[in-house]
Amino acid sequence: MRKYPRLFVRSRLQQGEEIDFDESHSKYLTRVLRLQSGDGIAVFNGRDGEWQGKLVIDGRRCRLALSEKSRDQKQVPDLDLLFAPVKKTRTDFIVEKATELGIANMTPVITAFTQSARVRTDRLTHLAIEAAEQSERLDVPTIYESVALARIISGWDVNRTIYYCDEAGADATFADTLKTRPARPAAILIGPEGGFSESERQLLRQHSFIIPVSLGPRILRAETAVASALSIWQSILGDWSQTS
Amino acid sequence: MRKYPRLFVRSRLQQGEEIDFDESHSKYLTRVLRLQSGDGIAVFNGRDGEWQGKLVIDGRRCRLALSEKSRDQKQVPDLDLLFAPVKKTRTDFIVEKATELGIANMTPVITAFTQSARVRTDRLTHLAIEAAEQSERLDVPTIYESVALARIISGWDVNRTIYYCDEAGADATFADTLKTRPARPAAILIGPEGGFSESERQLLRQHSFIIPVSLGPRILRAETAVASALSIWQSILGDWSQTS
Repeated sequence: MRKYPRLFVRSRLQQGEEIDFDESHSKYLTRVLRLQSGDGIAVFNGRDGEWQGKLVIDGRRCRLALSEKSRDQKQVPDLDLLFAPVKKTRTDFIVEKATELGIANMTPVITAFTQSARVRTDRLTHLAIEAAEQSERLDVPTIYESVALARIISGWDVNRTIYYCDEAGADATFADTLKTRPARPAAILIGPEGGFSESERQLLRQHSFIIPVSLGPRILRAETAVASALSIWQSILGDWSQTS
Repeated sequence: MRKYPRLFVRSRLQQGEEIDFDESHSKYLTRVLRLQSGDGIAVFNGRDGEWQGKLVIDGRRCRLALSEKSRDQKQVPDLDLLFAPVKKTRTDFIVEKATELGIANMTPVITAFTQSARVRTDRLTHLAIEAAEQSERLDVPTIYESVALARIISGWDVNRTIYYCDEAGADATFADTLKTRPARPAAILIGPEGGFSESERQLLRQHSFIIPVSLGPRILRAETAVASALSIWQSILGDWSQTS
């Protein structure tokens, strides 16, 4: 159970600092969460750890005097997600689930069978912030502007392995592949419903830094494949084994 | 890419059989999928494999003469899901994701912090059928009526291990635990948002067939925890390693 509300802020966090919440945060704290002056809340900014303090409600605005650092900053593992945007609700779920599961960066990738080429990254960033607040992350993943598949591949850093989830049948499962290729940094590429086109598949298979992997015998929806692949990566190479 | 529409039916499937679709299936085939007489479709019933045939549209009704068996029946691994129902959309996602990820049975479990005790299992079964059709499963998971946590535990078959995802901190990750305890059959228990109450936690820790496991350092929403735990179980003990 969460002990106190957590908010992502853009202010510097340090001893003695006071946060002035903007109108939208102030409304959220007083009208949605119905907090009172004196209630404890926590804030994080992606760099300075998590800080706690007591809320001061001053008319329509809220502020927070930081009293103590409750957690040191910790970064999520270095993992990228490249995903073909799907329908709105399901794209929202991709962003929310990837944030909870500790993704560092996400890039919407436009492929031949992509259903919705228009992606509002500002909206998605807002969702990622909410998911980060909820999931006790200390940072918010970066969501890059969308880019065409061929273009992102042509400029790709060959030292970052791309695991590409291939519905059409990869030779090995993702888990088995990760056990034999523990190379970091990494990215996971999830195609659209309908998979990749034949020429995209050829492009992907041309490069030695792109490894096709299987996510089991059933056809997964895009957002399921994202949650599945990230869970497997985190549990084998990520930060899940450091918990106690 | 799916080659032809797939439908779950309740008829016996065998050579020479003809399926008469009911009004709802007939509407779906002609108005939603806009199929024509002669179009190929596939059907499965959870027992007799997947069969193909060509559609015959006869006025408002559709039928299908089975021409060949396209896949032999295959069951999903023996894994149960016990989940505390959450808000409607997120409970729907739990059912959809668990079906895609190859769960055998699901039971909504009512806990102290369960937000919505009323669960319409008929609606959830309908969602599971759609997800099974979409994911190329050859069966539909059983969704049992909801039951109180203490009651299901008191009558539990002690030979079926329950892995209980404990936000409050388990000693080992789910993946590490599965590697040292490869006992089947199994069940996965996912609590509500807010976790389990202290007395529920004590109840769960009393039994040697209930094993607490961790799903990483972040707080996962219920539907994320379901997708995550099932993916990890399938990739270590399930049927993901049999693909090629």
